[in-house]
Amino acid sequence: MTLRYPNGNVYKKKPDKKNERKRGNIDRGNRGMSLEKDIEDTNTHYQITGKAIFNKRPTPIQVLKVKDNQICSAYFQEPSTVDFYGVYKGRYFDFEAKETQSKTSFPLKNIHAHQVQHMKNILAHKGESFLICRFVKLDKTYFLDAKYVIEYWNGMLSGERKSIPLDSFKENGIEIQFTYLAKVDYLPIIDRLYL
Amino acid sequence: MTLRYPNGNVYKKKPDKKNERKRGNIDRGNRGMSLEKDIEDTNTHYQITGKAIFNKRPTPIQVLKVKDNQICSAYFQEPSTVDFYGVYKGRYFDFEAKETQSKTSFPLKNIHAHQVQHMKNILAHKGESFLICRFVKLDKTYFLDAKYVIEYWNGMLSGERKSIPLDSFKENGIEIQFTYLAKVDYLPIIDRLYL
Repeated sequence: MTLRYPNGNVYKKKPDKKNERKRGNIDRGNRGMSLEKDIEDTNTHYQITGKAIFNKRPTPIQVLKVKDNQICSAYFQEPSTVDFYGVYKGRYFDFEAKETQSKTSFPLKNIHAHQVQHMKNILAHKGESFLICRFVKLDKTYFLDAKYVIEYWNGMLSGERKSIPLDSFKENGIEIQFTYLAKVDYLPIIDRLYL
Repeated sequence: MTLRYPNGNVYKKKPDKKNERKRGNIDRGNRGMSLEKDIEDTNTHYQITGKAIFNKRPTPIQVLKVKDNQICSAYFQEPSTVDFYGVYKGRYFDFEAKETQSKTSFPLKNIHAHQVQHMKNILAHKGESFLICRFVKLDKTYFLDAKYVIEYWNGMLSGERKSIPLDSFKENGIEIQFTYLAKVDYLPIIDRLYL
């Protein structure tokens, strides 16, 4: 599949020199891009190789004014569900993707109440929902089932917690491996946990 | 659930007097609204009553310029997937919703090639995909499995067809019943066809 810009030009990935300098000697391949971009690349790979169909849900935008098919006034709406959803072996899956700069925990303020409610709804209907969280400075990406996200969220509501500690990702979650074709290779974890 | 405008005011449905005049004496209850709105109401009803979770996929918009959190330049992108997706009894479903003013057939130009490809992909992964089509002037709404949409689409590519005839909706599809709570009550058809 050739990716193209809206004007029809072919998309070519530019070398990310600025980030490469920052990262020093660590060989991370193409990992300089954001988690969201890495997941979109992974989803494209899964689709091309016939493994699964996962899509990014577009950011909801409230359009106020349109002139000549061009939007001239609009604003971003708060997300009511999660970022990615798809089908794998007939079953429904969705997940939220988040990065954190923290080295010790994922701050729960990065998730919206509506998103946690959505996760509860999905579990109630026997779909599966999870969080993919990247600890950028540790260069680690974890897969955490929604039930733990909900548990920690409830802990926040009762004043006990403000974040999900890294240790919980290590104990209750699974580290997602990086491969050159599937940069955030989450399907093997879905196989292991749910199928 | 109270629906609210972005400014916080409570949403109240206004009587649609203009359309009521057009429709003459026919008692259609709240059916004056568009198919998309009817489906969103149905999905809200399914969610509140714990039957299924279906969401509308937001229209993808390419944002060009943002100032003070307000979007001042953007444009609509072509849809790459279908309008609605969700989970029911653990399984993945999605569908496209279309209205036509024709009394005899649904013109295939109303669907994008990417959407048909998406339907093929979903079927290949054992998800279910379908079209909900309303013949506005006949006041009939049909459910048609994606395999027929794909078949007619292929017929268009080979020059045989430009539309899906109403008779095909009657023979291969199922008419969706209107109820006051679920205005486009498609779940019973999912039960019957797929589960």
